[in-house]
Order: sequence, then structure tokens, then C-alpha cells
Amino acid sequence: MISPRPTTIIDAPRLKKHLGLDLTLASETFQYTGSFKFRAAHNVARNVSNDHIICASSGNFGQAIAYASALFKKKCTVVMPQNAPKIKVDAVREYGAEVDLVDVTKKSRLDRLAELAAKLPDAYVASPYDDPLVIDGNATLFDELLGLGLEFDYIVAPIGGGGLVSGLVQGAQRAGKKTGIIAAEPLLSNDFADSIRAGKLVGDPDESTTIADGARMMKLGANNWKILEHGIGGVVEVSEEQIAEGVKLLFLLANLKSEPTGALSIGALLAEPDRFKGKRTCCVISGANADPALYARLIA
Amino acid sequence: MISPRPTTIIDAPRLKKHLGLDLTLASETFQYTGSFKFRAAHNVARNVSNDHIICASSGNFGQAIAYASALFKKKCTVVMPQNAPKIKVDAVREYGAEVDLVDVTKKSRLDRLAELAAKLPDAYVASPYDDPLVIDGNATLFDELLGLGLEFDYIVAPIGGGGLVSGLVQGAQRAGKKTGIIAAEPLLSNDFADSIRAGKLVGDPDESTTIADGARMMKLGANNWKILEHGIGGVVEVSEEQIAEGVKLLFLLANLKSEPTGALSIGALLAEPDRFKGKRTCCVISGANADPALYARLIA
Repeated sequence: MISPRPTTIIDAPRLKKHLGLDLTLASETFQYTGSFKFRAAHNVARNVSNDHIICASSGNFGQAIAYASALFKKKCTVVMPQNAPKIKVDAVREYGAEVDLVDVTKKSRLDRLAELAAKLPDAYVASPYDDPLVIDGNATLFDELLGLGLEFDYIVAPIGGGGLVSGLVQGAQRAGKKTGIIAAEPLLSNDFADSIRAGKLVGDPDESTTIADGARMMKLGANNWKILEHGIGGVVEVSEEQIAEGVKLLFLLANLKSEPTGALSIGALLAEPDRFKGKRTCCVISGANADPALYARLIA
Repeated sequence: MISPRPTTIIDAPRLKKHLGLDLTLASETFQYTGSFKFRAAHNVARNVSNDHIICASSGNFGQAIAYASALFKKKCTVVMPQNAPKIKVDAVREYGAEVDLVDVTKKSRLDRLAELAAKLPDAYVASPYDDPLVIDGNATLFDELLGLGLEFDYIVAPIGGGGLVSGLVQGAQRAGKKTGIIAAEPLLSNDFADSIRAGKLVGDPDESTTIADGARMMKLGANNWKILEHGIGGVVEVSEEQIAEGVKLLFLLANLKSEPTGALSIGALLAEPDRFKGKRTCCVISGANADPALYARLIA
């Protein structure tokens, strides 16, 4: 039986020297289905008793839950927008799920998901982030770092719905560690930074167009906010240029393919270098399912 | 003290499914200096008593010996052609070596190296492949696979001067294993395949223009040929299209950045799939120091 693959620790001397920081990379790009989302999806598929799992995702969670469901011999349906890139739709199908395409000009994905849930009362409706099983699954990344004897002042990871960062915070809390978990958020989709400033959970009015497409969520999950409101070590807002530079630096100086969302953590070091000076910092590179044409443009 | 980084084992289900083969990747792309060459360079710098190491290399060995020499506090001089890409010259300098640029229209790199060697009688002249210390260093890759409990019918690795493949054969022989070590060679630079056919060591008349620039060597080293003449498990000649397809498949289906030379092993599976059907096969991805513009073109 396939279990989540241990994270890949990369020591990248040229990248460290370029940034002038004490940096370690924890790369989830070789995780099954190409992103950390498999940790969560595996934990969901393993623990729910339902034989059918449904979700709405046009991104990495869709592939992850498709593969995890297949491993546990469960049926899986992923709601995706009709205009989703063919390469992503094909990947979800290849992993064994049924794809339910919705014309988002007529009906939102969440409305379609609610419709499906009503029709399939025995199915488990999986959230890509707002679910204790998802948060628990992601917490294994912190446990692994600790198991390797790696302790950091800061662990920097991207934030979208908040699943990864809340998992890391939960992992640190359970282990009784003071590690600061830093959320790297696109400036163009900064609902979490706004929430921290407001002292309450607020959302973006519209979906963002940031190239970090895994972080376009308009609002954190309630379960995630509950953990992060007082548990987060800080949030860094990252510009589009810094995200793009992160992708390029990982390619050039660490030989690592990352998708833009995965490079948010490096972008955060570029955005606020002083925060990390002299600190033992780990950047989580969360995934690598990049569009080839976009990627070629970013590195060239 | 930095030692060679253990190889990165990657299980890539989508790539396996696409090829229909039982495949494991052993990636040297996160090795220090970005290629397996650091294994050899480290072993040379550690074992020679000379305080100065000189070599001719416009490729990965140059970077590797520069970094390894710096680690052991030795002086290092790398002869490179005047028209070498600036990015490669800069990398060698960044790792701490002195670069000796030679106008190859007037003097060959090897002539310049001989000149330097005469001027510096106390310096160690390091060959990137034709040296028992190099072969021993590369043999550690086989030892590591065995140490991980990974046994294969075939291990496929690129061949240029023969340093990596002869190291793998030596590792298998010392361990008493029957693993077939398969050399993946560009069809455009097939001096090793020609040598096997001729039953004696022969060379190409001219340097090849294959995109697998790490395999442009015109002739194997004598030490390498001695091991490979009877020790090699086979040689597969790989077309330029297959090399390019290998780079693209690693990017798309394994999230792995590879340079063209590093993708030769995948190209070999494309060239002769029947040879590997039903066999436990390990492909060594030997390095990832790709030119960004070329890489962007290959994946787009």
C-alpha cells in the first residue's frame, strides 16, 4: 500500500549563498500526485467509511483525492470548471476519478457540489483544506522534519485555504515546539493577511488572478482560522514578481521544478529578507504541477 | 564537512504507467554541484596529497572539482574554452576555482592542460573519467542503492567518457551482483557502441553536436574501457528526439528537472522498450545543469 512519501530535504548551497540565509528546502514536489495535498487526501480516504468521495477542485487536491480514493478502492467524483486546462482534467481522470464538468458561467462549483451531495447522501464531501482530517494529514510534514532531527526557527509555507499552514502549526503545537510557522501569501490574494490585521476572518470579494493558482482561495476555512488566528508565527505578502523570481531561483540554483504556488515560500524570503537573517529557516516547496508554457516563460 | 549527498530515489507512478515499465529513478540532480560528478571530485580531492588540482572541463566536472577542492582547502584551476557559456564559467568561479580560458581555435584544451601541468609539476591533473579515484567515487552510487535494499535487473546510466558506468559496473562486481549496467549513449556520439561492435576501443573522429553535452566525449578512458569491455550489460543508442522526449517526460510526469545528458537513461527506455519489459529497471538521472533557454524550448 502506498503511503505519503517522506518529504525531500534539499541542501542548496548556491541558493543559500545567493539569499544570504540559513536555508533548508523541504520539497513536496515528488510527493505522490506532485504536491503536499496527497498527505491530506490519503488521510481522508483512509479514515472515512464512505465508499464514495466527492469534492470540488481544479487543482492539486483533485488529483490527490482521485489517487488516494483509488488506492483505498473508493469511488471519487471531482467537480471541475468546464474551462479547466485539459492537462489537469486528464490527470484527475488518469488517477481514476470521474470528472464532473460544470459551466461556471451558469452555476458555481460549490453549488454543483451541493447538488451532487444532495443526490449522493452516502458520499463524503471532502474539503481541500477545511477539514480536521486534512489538517491532520498535513501535520505529518512537521512530524517528519522533527523525526529527521531538523529543528528550525521558522518554517515558511504557502497559504491559500490554510490547510498546509494550519497542519504545520498543529504539528508544532502537539510536539511542544516554538517553531514559528510563517504563511507566504500572494499580495494579490491576501485575505489571510487582511484577516490577521482585522483580528477576524475576512474574505476577498473576488477570486484573485495571482500566478500562484493554488492560493487563489477567497477565504480561509473555519477550522483553519481557528488554529491560525493565534497560532501563526507571521504572514508575508509576496508580489507576483517575487513569486516568479522564486520559481526561477529554484530552477537555476537548486535544480528544483516548482509551480508558482510552491515558490511562494522563497518569494517570502525575497519580500522580507531581514525577518529571516540569522534564523534557521525551512521553506516548504509545496508542489510542482506547473503549466509547461507558463513555466518555460518564467525560467527563460 | 560536506560529503556526497545520498541519491534521491523517486517513484513516479505516472511516468511508469506511461512507459509501461517497472521503473525507479535515482536522481543525482540534487547532488552537490548538480550532478553525480561531485562523487568523483570529492573522492579525488580527499585522496590526493597535492595542494593544487588542475583539469580541463567545460561541464559538470569543472564545477564539481572546484567545489570539492574548496572543501578540502586546495587550489583548483579549470581550463575552459573562451567561448564557454558565461553561466558555466561563473559557476566554476563561484565554487572557488580559478578559470583558465583558452582560445580553442589556437590551442586545444588538452594542450593547454599539458602546458599548465608542465608549469605546475606539483599539481594533480584530474581526469573527469579516466582515473581510478573517479571510478571509485562513482561506484558509491551502486553501494547506496544496495544499502537501501534496492536491487534491479538493470541500471541504466548515461555514458560519455565512461566514468559513471564503469563506477556502477565496479560497484556491482565488488558486491557480487549480477545487475546489468546499461550504457545510454547518444546515437550522434556513439563511440562506445562502436567500440563494443569493434571489440576494441575506438573513438569518434570529431566532437559531436548532441544536445546531451555531457556525453560529447570522443573516446572512452583507458581505465573505463578496461572495466566496461567485458563488464557492461549492454549499450543503447539514443536519438536526439528520444533525449528531448526524456527531458520532457521527466518534467511532465515526474516533476524532475534534468539536463539532456541526465535524460539519456529515459531516452534509452524509449529507444528499446522491449529490452526492459518485465525487468526491474533503475534509471540514473545524472545531472540537471541545463541551459535555461534550451530547457524552456524542450518542455514547451
